[in-house]
Amino acid sequence: MAIKYPNGHLPLYNEVRKKQLKRASQKTTFSNRGMRFEEAINQSNDYYLNHGIAVIHKKPTPVQIVKVDYPKRSAAVIKEAYFKDASTTDYNGVYQGHYLDFEAKETKNKTSFPLQNLHEHQINHMRQCLTHQGICFILLWFSSLNRCFLIDSQYIVEAWEKQEIERKSLSLTQIEKIGIEITVGIAPRIPFIKAVDQLIESKEK
Amino acid sequence: MAIKYPNGHLPLYNEVRKKQLKRASQKTTFSNRGMRFEEAINQSNDYYLNHGIAVIHKKPTPVQIVKVDYPKRSAAVIKEAYFKDASTTDYNGVYQGHYLDFEAKETKNKTSFPLQNLHEHQINHMRQCLTHQGICFILLWFSSLNRCFLIDSQYIVEAWEKQEIERKSLSLTQIEKIGIEITVGIAPRIPFIKAVDQLIESKEK
Repeated sequence: MAIKYPNGHLPLYNEVRKKQLKRASQKTTFSNRGMRFEEAINQSNDYYLNHGIAVIHKKPTPVQIVKVDYPKRSAAVIKEAYFKDASTTDYNGVYQGHYLDFEAKETKNKTSFPLQNLHEHQINHMRQCLTHQGICFILLWFSSLNRCFLIDSQYIVEAWEKQEIERKSLSLTQIEKIGIEITVGIAPRIPFIKAVDQLIESKEK
Repeated sequence: MAIKYPNGHLPLYNEVRKKQLKRASQKTTFSNRGMRFEEAINQSNDYYLNHGIAVIHKKPTPVQIVKVDYPKRSAAVIKEAYFKDASTTDYNGVYQGHYLDFEAKETKNKTSFPLQNLHEHQINHMRQCLTHQGICFILLWFSSLNRCFLIDSQYIVEAWEKQEIERKSLSLTQIEKIGIEITVGIAPRIPFIKAVDQLIESKEK
């Protein structure tokens, strides 16, 4: 299904994408948009991989490829493509036989995490993974507070289902209760596997 | 890291990519290249998802994005991007709490599966997943024979390590012994979860 989006199509999608790309200077390339929390997680994943602790990878950005050139004697060049909404979460992998699945989110908010940072299909994906006994969570970074939490997706899904659309958020007070706080370190930078151990332990009880 | 590959760069990569894209008519879009076995697996994954049996997704094609345009009032357009080698396998997900990880391969060969269809980094990824107790395998389609097998990645990794580069292949006779044959059906088209059950059972013994 190669859909070429005409001008003006998918305005909502476009608004969302614009917000996502807001940080990217148009002079620099897209890949430099510098999501620092994401980088810290990627480096932590590298650490866990290299130390034989867990195999976790970030999924590639989903792209709808429309036009490809095949110049002679050089690599194929994609000349036209569009960003697609991710249908799942950003990260998954394996840890001690467990299926891990998570999304990394950053907020400047100091008192709550607004759930509109998540998409409906991501919530659905979390719900499905939970049903199949996956270890599913969100890594949340309060950038203004310098605090990091792992939140079991179970709570996210419940909050999403319970609340009215306008109010969808988890307060910091709630997060302090239901989440597992992660102290940011050096190697790995986000030592989230310790929190995963706690999560698995609490699920097995 | 936004690397613009100059002409003539990455010749080997380019050859591999050309072979992969051989089927794609340059008149049609890339997305229509029609890997039929892959489609059958994707539909089987949809079936498993919709029937609440397993959550398995194909990872997006890894793409190095170099240039993006942000036209007013329409979606961001990727104007220059390059295919990257996949660092992992194509599919992963969760089934009854188990981490599943696999690659789908098709061969016209009637007597063996040449291992050069796989990349070194995919072998490494399989090795890592196996270490962490993932359920890791290859779904292999002998298109000339109309036969489908699930092969535990353990055998693939061993064959890769044992054999000389020129001879890297698994004969059909070997595959009939070590693999689990899958009878292609209607819904799901590739009922591989049955074979996964067998694989898990044999691992638990």
